[in-house]
Amino acid sequence: MKYSSKLIADSVAEFTKLPGIGEKSALRLVLHLLKQDEGKVKSFGETITRMRNEIKICSTCYNVSDTGVCEICSNVHRDHTTVCLVESIRDVIAIENTNTYRGVYHVLGGIISPIDGVGPEKLNIESLLQRVKEGRVKEIIMAISPTIEGDTTIFYISKKLREFNVPITTIARGISFGGELEYTDEMTLGRSIATRMPYENYLVRNSE
Amino acid sequence: MKYSSKLIADSVAEFTKLPGIGEKSALRLVLHLLKQDEGKVKSFGETITRMRNEIKICSTCYNVSDTGVCEICSNVHRDHTTVCLVESIRDVIAIENTNTYRGVYHVLGGIISPIDGVGPEKLNIESLLQRVKEGRVKEIIMAISPTIEGDTTIFYISKKLREFNVPITTIARGISFGGELEYTDEMTLGRSIATRMPYENYLVRNSE
Repeated sequence: MKYSSKLIADSVAEFTKLPGIGEKSALRLVLHLLKQDEGKVKSFGETITRMRNEIKICSTCYNVSDTGVCEICSNVHRDHTTVCLVESIRDVIAIENTNTYRGVYHVLGGIISPIDGVGPEKLNIESLLQRVKEGRVKEIIMAISPTIEGDTTIFYISKKLREFNVPITTIARGISFGGELEYTDEMTLGRSIATRMPYENYLVRNSE
Repeated sequence: MKYSSKLIADSVAEFTKLPGIGEKSALRLVLHLLKQDEGKVKSFGETITRMRNEIKICSTCYNVSDTGVCEICSNVHRDHTTVCLVESIRDVIAIENTNTYRGVYHVLGGIISPIDGVGPEKLNIESLLQRVKEGRVKEIIMAISPTIEGDTTIFYISKKLREFNVPITTIARGISFGGELEYTDEMTLGRSIATRMPYENYLVRNSE
């Protein structure tokens, strides 16, 4: 598209660099900003720049943080003996929003995927082993997506963890709450029968 | 949603202020920016802030511009005797992208809509009359959306223009190219028969 203003063309170009935003959406956002107060637009630009400049990575769990150690790792009310292993900070946010987990995290920063050139050495695995070696961790929950790469990652890490004798669990897999049997894929349905759980557990979960 | 970082929470809040961006999309954009170089994110913020601070409104046609008079109004190769009246700068961009119009514009800045409290005095109508009064304008094309408010606006302005005896045209209304008769609404279809045009005109349009 052509714009009679270079300022607008440049702003549209910046927005189209964002994922899922095409040129028409970008133009809509730019024209919206054009109608806002100068102060508001300045605050928008500054907030995002400051976020990128000042954000830190937690030295313990590799979650993003405003400080050297993240809010979760520095919270004494959380259970520091249970470590939930996740792929990315997006997963930390998702689990935190369930309001059910009181342990801490360890962010891998990806999963093992030879096709994308991601080997175990690129992930935060050594630091996880180090945390376990310190002796405080009593359980590691593998909250990794149930894909081939995810399963490979879990397998690799569980082998590395074997020498420390720390219990490893994985998040439950099965049919979603509200999901309908007939629309569930065969693998999930088949495995959910094979790994069926006592009815009491089901009741506990529902009343929690 | 809860975020363990205030920097992230603030950035997400800024993005959700934009139209059509909910909290999940905002988070996706923020996490994308987090992965970019600091310089790139800084440039994103600065481009948008500069756009808002430095943008000007063309003193002739009220289009947005980088300079006091916009690119279109200051272009001597354009036909300054034909003025296309549009509601917003978005319409200027849309018409410019058809690559078929060589005249100039006049941006009204809205349409008459008593329900939204927009009366004629809030629109750039006086300045249009002034341009016509100067005697250079030979035709005014009303490129206003065919809604009730749009028709009211056209009616109001055409009455105001009557004393200057300048020809007024409206953009053609009818069935879209590629549109199918059976899915066209009754009003458009009915009016397209009432305002049918000579076949020669149709041929000229197609070969242009």
